Amino acid sequence: MSPLIKLAVIPGDGIGPEVVAEAVKVLEAATAADDVSFDATWFSLGAARFLETGDVLTDEDLTAIASHDAILLGAVGGVPGDPRLVNANIERGLLLKLRFSLDHYVNLRPSVLFPGVPSPLAAPGNVDFVVVREGTEGPYVGNGGAIRQGTTHEVANEVSVNTAFGVERVVRYAFEKAQGRPRRHLTLVHKTNVLVFAGSLWQRIVSAVAAEYPDVTVDYLHVDAATIFLVSNPSRFDVIVTDNLFGDILTDLAAAISGGIGLAASGNINPEGRFPSMFEPVHGSAPDIAGKQVADPTAAILSVALLLAHLGLTDAAARVSAAVTADIVARAALGIPRSTSAVGDAIVTRLTD
Amino acid sequence: MSPLIKLAVIPGDGIGPEVVAEAVKVLEAATAADDVSFDATWFSLGAARFLETGDVLTDEDLTAIASHDAILLGAVGGVPGDPRLVNANIERGLLLKLRFSLDHYVNLRPSVLFPGVPSPLAAPGNVDFVVVREGTEGPYVGNGGAIRQGTTHEVANEVSVNTAFGVERVVRYAFEKAQGRPRRHLTLVHKTNVLVFAGSLWQRIVSAVAAEYPDVTVDYLHVDAATIFLVSNPSRFDVIVTDNLFGDILTDLAAAISGGIGLAASGNINPEGRFPSMFEPVHGSAPDIAGKQVADPTAAILSVALLLAHLGLTDAAARVSAAVTADIVARAALGIPRSTSAVGDAIVTRLTD
Ligand SMILES: CC(C)[C@H](C(=O)O)[C@@H](O)C(=O)O
Ligand SMILES: CC(C)[C@H](C(=O)O)[C@@H](O)C(=O)O
Repeated sequence: MSPLIKLAVIPGDGIGPEVVAEAVKVLEAATAADDVSFDATWFSLGAARFLETGDVLTDEDLTAIASHDAILLGAVGGVPGDPRLVNANIERGLLLKLRFSLDHYVNLRPSVLFPGVPSPLAAPGNVDFVVVREGTEGPYVGNGGAIRQGTTHEVANEVSVNTAFGVERVVRYAFEKAQGRPRRHLTLVHKTNVLVFAGSLWQRIVSAVAAEYPDVTVDYLHVDAATIFLVSNPSRFDVIVTDNLFGDILTDLAAAISGGIGLAASGNINPEGRFPSMFEPVHGSAPDIAGKQVADPTAAILSVALLLAHLGLTDAAARVSAAVTADIVARAALGIPRSTSAVGDAIVTRLTD
Repeated sequence: MSPLIKLAVIPGDGIGPEVVAEAVKVLEAATAADDVSFDATWFSLGAARFLETGDVLTDEDLTAIASHDAILLGAVGGVPGDPRLVNANIERGLLLKLRFSLDHYVNLRPSVLFPGVPSPLAAPGNVDFVVVREGTEGPYVGNGGAIRQGTTHEVANEVSVNTAFGVERVVRYAFEKAQGRPRRHLTLVHKTNVLVFAGSLWQRIVSAVAAEYPDVTVDYLHVDAATIFLVSNPSRFDVIVTDNLFGDILTDLAAAISGGIGLAASGNINPEGRFPSMFEPVHGSAPDIAGKQVADPTAAILSVALLLAHLGLTDAAARVSAAVTADIVARAALGIPRSTSAVGDAIVTRLTD
């Protein structure tokens, strides 16, 4: 009997269901010939579910999701400004809750400018790097508060929490990643000259771990300077390791310069496998274009490649990457936009031919 | 007798003295015909001073500087990695200390892509916006700490402090700025879906103040999305208002897309004039190219234009801006690099011809 992989699928809101449908098609096609099968459970979560039931993510949802081997997520979030969602904060209550509860301490976001893909940069050069963003600490911990709210004396604080335990494990992961890549270069991005306590912790841990990886070269950039290099010389980057908030900012910029968030995939990873890892496109739910079959499912499909690689199905992962790359090159030649399902179908055809 | 303006000049380290020399030449030339004169006091501050005396900024320095009408600063900071500077943190002890002590709550950073200036963007469009960055709050307050430092149980926190008082005054300034510009558009940039307490404060205050400026249109972007627009459609921005850290990141990116930090000027402003405002190029001290007369003094010279405008010398400010713009257009035609002083001289010639 072939191994059965339990997959939790969270299509979410907006374009989420459309892109996830293509991603699942590709997942099945890519593994059809393998000695493995997927058992998908679909979870209805997101703004739509909240508006229907008032629930964002119940304990039962969380327990059920946690019992799977991996998670594929489309996108969550309602129409911006929808008054019924003002106090819901689907992002915190669902997306971040999953990342934190399932200890996704590595947020892996590759940036590759595929051949033929237009970049907003005049001379992007060879863009091929990966951001290892910390996923369970920093200013994302939800450790904020306010006093005298709504008065002229209001004080609102946000606390960034950083631990040696949390920083070291993600830094080690980043060094491993760097060691497995041809250039073996790691850049720490932080703001050590201002955030002196957190910055010092990150810097000391990177220096200490670096001693164990003598074949990896290491440098450091302040986050502000890193944004300059991302537009002036992105090919200088190989692996970036950074905190949760800087990683959030840098990966959107990285996606923009390498063809847009329509192509940017990500993995929220618990490397030890104590909890299922979650794979999702970097883009949001884009309610304005939802249901029209115009969303690009490529980012979701590339997230499937990351999912397969994480599960150790490296051949299938490579097949998906190759099919997507070929499709991206072909679409540049094509010149006309295709529907969401046409992109998925074209990639499935490449996988099954 | 003509009014005497007391100017504190802090050339600083690296290329600071070179670019400040040109900026002062231009300041004098631009105001030569006016009924005003400048009395400059030069302060030796920065890494060089620290290495000589062990002082970063003494109380006497601060008191002396505070007694001036305005401050012109070049750049501070020693050679990166210099072991003698490891514990000095010239940035915090000098630059940020001045901004905080002199209540520079507005950090004003215009981004203009001048005609003929190359941008890393393939199609930048009409880049002409200004970032109003808060300067005395946020994660810059120095409110961090660590326990069990150096152990595997270390916890390092950084606190972002945001007050209604502090946010409202900078938001008002930004609305005033927006009202004085043709497009009258203001974009709040924050990360309200994650930093919910600080984000809520910023959002409520922007909404409240907006009611007093019905002719200004307002929108909101998460900081990650803002970086995407800065490379994909920078002409959508008119005035951006944001917190200290997001402003730091966005203004380096903004400088990069509009010709580089060699052209980016900034003002650290105390609008009420209780303390002297400080004008400085956005770039750093660049010790690697110091003393070679290759640094571009344009950012320092444009900072002089901001200084003159702040002092109410609007005609002189306009003359400097016009001379710099003409020089930038001319240099594109020239095609060969000029020395630091040649750029200053060329701009002086335009002002005095
Ligand atoms: C939706 C939001 C909470 C999220 C984040 O800030 O991490 C998103 O921007 C991302 O990068 O996945
Ligand atoms: C030198 C550093 C402390 C400073 C900052 O972060 O504000 C600089 O980057 C700037 O933008 O002026």
